[in-house]
Amino acid sequence: MEYRKIQDEDNDAGTISDDIENLRGKVFSGGASVSNVPTREQAKWKRKTVVTLALTFLTSSQAILIVWSKRAGRYEYSVTTANFLVETLKCALSLAALAKIWKNEGVTEDNRLSTTLDEVIVYPIPAVLYLVKNLLQYYIFAYVDAPGYQILKNLNIISTGVLYRIILKKKLSEIQWAAFILLCAGCTTAQLNSRSDRVLQTPLQGWIMAIVMALLSGFAGVYTEAIIKKRPTRNINVQNFWLYIFGMAFNAVAILIQDFDAVMNKGFFHGYSIITTLMILNHALSGIAVSMVMKYADNIVKVYSTSVAVLLTAVVSVFLFGFHLTLAFFLGATVVSVSVYLHSTGKLQR
Amino acid sequence: MEYRKIQDEDNDAGTISDDIENLRGKVFSGGASVSNVPTREQAKWKRKTVVTLALTFLTSSQAILIVWSKRAGRYEYSVTTANFLVETLKCALSLAALAKIWKNEGVTEDNRLSTTLDEVIVYPIPAVLYLVKNLLQYYIFAYVDAPGYQILKNLNIISTGVLYRIILKKKLSEIQWAAFILLCAGCTTAQLNSRSDRVLQTPLQGWIMAIVMALLSGFAGVYTEAIIKKRPTRNINVQNFWLYIFGMAFNAVAILIQDFDAVMNKGFFHGYSIITTLMILNHALSGIAVSMVMKYADNIVKVYSTSVAVLLTAVVSVFLFGFHLTLAFFLGATVVSVSVYLHSTGKLQR
Repeated sequence: MEYRKIQDEDNDAGTISDDIENLRGKVFSGGASVSNVPTREQAKWKRKTVVTLALTFLTSSQAILIVWSKRAGRYEYSVTTANFLVETLKCALSLAALAKIWKNEGVTEDNRLSTTLDEVIVYPIPAVLYLVKNLLQYYIFAYVDAPGYQILKNLNIISTGVLYRIILKKKLSEIQWAAFILLCAGCTTAQLNSRSDRVLQTPLQGWIMAIVMALLSGFAGVYTEAIIKKRPTRNINVQNFWLYIFGMAFNAVAILIQDFDAVMNKGFFHGYSIITTLMILNHALSGIAVSMVMKYADNIVKVYSTSVAVLLTAVVSVFLFGFHLTLAFFLGATVVSVSVYLHSTGKLQR
Repeated sequence: MEYRKIQDEDNDAGTISDDIENLRGKVFSGGASVSNVPTREQAKWKRKTVVTLALTFLTSSQAILIVWSKRAGRYEYSVTTANFLVETLKCALSLAALAKIWKNEGVTEDNRLSTTLDEVIVYPIPAVLYLVKNLLQYYIFAYVDAPGYQILKNLNIISTGVLYRIILKKKLSEIQWAAFILLCAGCTTAQLNSRSDRVLQTPLQGWIMAIVMALLSGFAGVYTEAIIKKRPTRNINVQNFWLYIFGMAFNAVAILIQDFDAVMNKGFFHGYSIITTLMILNHALSGIAVSMVMKYADNIVKVYSTSVAVLLTAVVSVFLFGFHLTLAFFLGATVVSVSVYLHSTGKLQR
């Protein structure tokens, strides 16, 4: 268990789990509502669009890097060290952004790095939740194979919607709920292959673990949004810094527990390649994009963003790797597109 | 080509093509709108529900009879004679219903059997359209295999929606259009199997024929609705009688052209079994149910009715024949359910 292959890392390393975009939705609601609205609203909407597009692009290229790495051969690097580097890079990038802001605007109440116990005490919680979820991931493979796990991960969509409603107390319209169920069904349909039916033979323990993991992942996402939105004027880079510093700490502990011997014997960077480096860079940027989406949009946009990215990845893979798209993919993509449309139109009608 | 096996008949014999129900939709819109509305509206709604449920039940048992007949062995009977008997039985049933009405209410302007050229001239048109479509069906198998054809038949859903909009000039809300696309995608998803992807290799001629057949079938359905609804007070049994008498005539010609020798040598009822008889009975009753749905509801309800029946059939087959439901089926059924919900909720909101 000490060293895992790149493909096991997938979407779940660190805080970068499942994320992309309501692209068409944004364009729609934007086009319809922005025209006569103050410039400040327009700026907000633009910022939301930019971070969402960035997240879609990064998640999509993340998946493409995974395919590329599988093709290029198997690199055996330590996932815990890679996760640690991702968190470290995110911290460094947040600090760099802050330094620039301090230089331009000076240090204010909102962008100062120093914090209070009251503010910071909740920041380790998402990191702990992801850690528990990643631990569970080792055990679920006793009940489900890897393609089955990919299918079950779509439960995250539903759990995020439900927890978003319960914890953040934000309402979705009935149409938007319907759209959310469709998003889950569409994403799963797009991933169907000849071996997918095996997932129906998953024993009860497997289902329970999959549901618990979906709830943990959904809760971590929604809780992060709650933390970030609790102080709307606080600079996002400061908030990110505190989120990631705990990510670094937890991943350092994970290295000690899981990969201490391997790191000691083979070295910290054993098995690293160009692709590993690109993946770490991509994960760091995606992580920051997720935080930005949480700040300027919400978890629902994040879920749409990831789902659309999965479809984009498949289309891009046709050109890059000569993949063939299946009928199931076209059907799933149609359902996801309708879902995106309904999500945006459902908002306008209420 | 003279004698075809029972399984080739499927849904497309005679006028009984693709049909079932917006069950939940009816219950919803009914429950929400009926409470304070005159009893006449309630009676209308009840009648609509009854005919729709009947159509769903009949289409579903039709599919089950087909599975049963495949299991029971292959019966080689002439499809043209079976189609002729279906039309004859429908005519007889319409006349029987009329006789009862005449006895109770006397002969009126609306229920008299005699007609004018102006009224009757359009009645052969649907029969001709179905005939052309059934002819094309022979040729499309040069380009698509049978499972592929089952997939392509879902194009009927879209063509019916489009022609319903254009010819009957009835508007569907945006949500209802989205629901219609979902219905098509969901039904197709539910039918996916390991061989479905082959349909993507269909040559252009195959696609064109499939689209033409979908348009013919959709046009025949919508045109039938137009004929029946043109005279709202005219008794449906009279309208049915005239529709079916032309069906009989065209099928008699089909026997002469296609199966004359076989009928002469082997006899009219060669290859008939109990299942064949049940199927003829079922087709006749389904055909009448389709007409009733056209009269008291519309083509959209008909399409939902058939689609839900396809799903019901699969579930019933699990108990009857020990079939296994696939993950694709569950996903498709979910999408169809959401579509039914959206269709009804889309109506309420406009």
